[in-house]
Amino acid sequence: MNRSDVPADDVIAQTAHLRFVKRDGWSYVERTTASGVVCIVARTREDRIVLVEQYRPPVARRVIELPAGLCGDLADQADEALEIAAMRELLEETGYRATKMRNVATVASSAGMTNEMVTIFVADQIEKVESGGGDESEDITVHEISLAAIDDWLKQSQQSGKLVDARVYSGLYFLRRESDVHVG
Amino acid sequence: MNRSDVPADDVIAQTAHLRFVKRDGWSYVERTTASGVVCIVARTREDRIVLVEQYRPPVARRVIELPAGLCGDLADQADEALEIAAMRELLEETGYRATKMRNVATVASSAGMTNEMVTIFVADQIEKVESGGGDESEDITVHEISLAAIDDWLKQSQQSGKLVDARVYSGLYFLRRESDVHVG
Repeated sequence: MNRSDVPADDVIAQTAHLRFVKRDGWSYVERTTASGVVCIVARTREDRIVLVEQYRPPVARRVIELPAGLCGDLADQADEALEIAAMRELLEETGYRATKMRNVATVASSAGMTNEMVTIFVADQIEKVESGGGDESEDITVHEISLAAIDDWLKQSQQSGKLVDARVYSGLYFLRRESDVHVG
Repeated sequence: MNRSDVPADDVIAQTAHLRFVKRDGWSYVERTTASGVVCIVARTREDRIVLVEQYRPPVARRVIELPAGLCGDLADQADEALEIAAMRELLEETGYRATKMRNVATVASSAGMTNEMVTIFVADQIEKVESGGGDESEDITVHEISLAAIDDWLKQSQQSGKLVDARVYSGLYFLRRESDVHVG
């Protein structure tokens, strides 16, 4: 996330988590507290995908997302491997444990306005071991949706006023590509 | 995009295209010049997807993206319908004309840091009528990739140092879901 190579003169403003930066005539936002972002396409043995829902002040709506989190956001974890962060975030947010994950892509969130990049992992055969719901600063609802019904469920969520994060559909693409299971 | 309902006191900083805002203790970035963003999953009669590539200063890399653009970013087009904007952007950026499009979803780009939402359209049987490449402020390379080879092509692009936008995979999900054509 280029934390160290932004000259101070290029910083327009900074808050606890974000920095508003100008470079080469372009302005954009970057995270100040993380070296990477991971998200997880998590499938149970029963062919359900595990999604999370939380209120997001910037859009003033509840948003359906892949389980996700920051990597290296704590002082003593700056070099934490992305995969370890992904395992930890999946467990914290959903209560599901993965024993293995595949790194399928690192994608740009919206490269005209932010340098955020997200690494997507696919985890199969995850197992429920805790209640989930995130840490004390988070208020996360966990959903487990049959892959055969996911399109209808996402459509209904949108009709009820919730938003869906773009990476949910990216994740479904990777699941569908790697699987013989019918997703839809 | 809530252009009008941000109290001036909540604006931390503003540039030509973006506004850095604080609301309810959260900071995030929003566009100042657009009421919406559209992107287009465009498929030719020969089952090729049309993608664009351009240099993005925030990530300091060339990025592979769906054709996309702002809606209502010009003073006289503030109420322009999203679908008309999508038709115009597809033509401007790629030289392809669509006669019909389906609105398949409106998704959040990264709802923890921006209020950006993108409406995704699918266009089939598009026809090349111009050279494309964007307007005078843009430097866009147009790619037409066989859907049967798209995964390998995206992997090679990443290996060569380019980034892929998350919405490319979201778009491939919608194509694959709606089609009998094998994508992969």
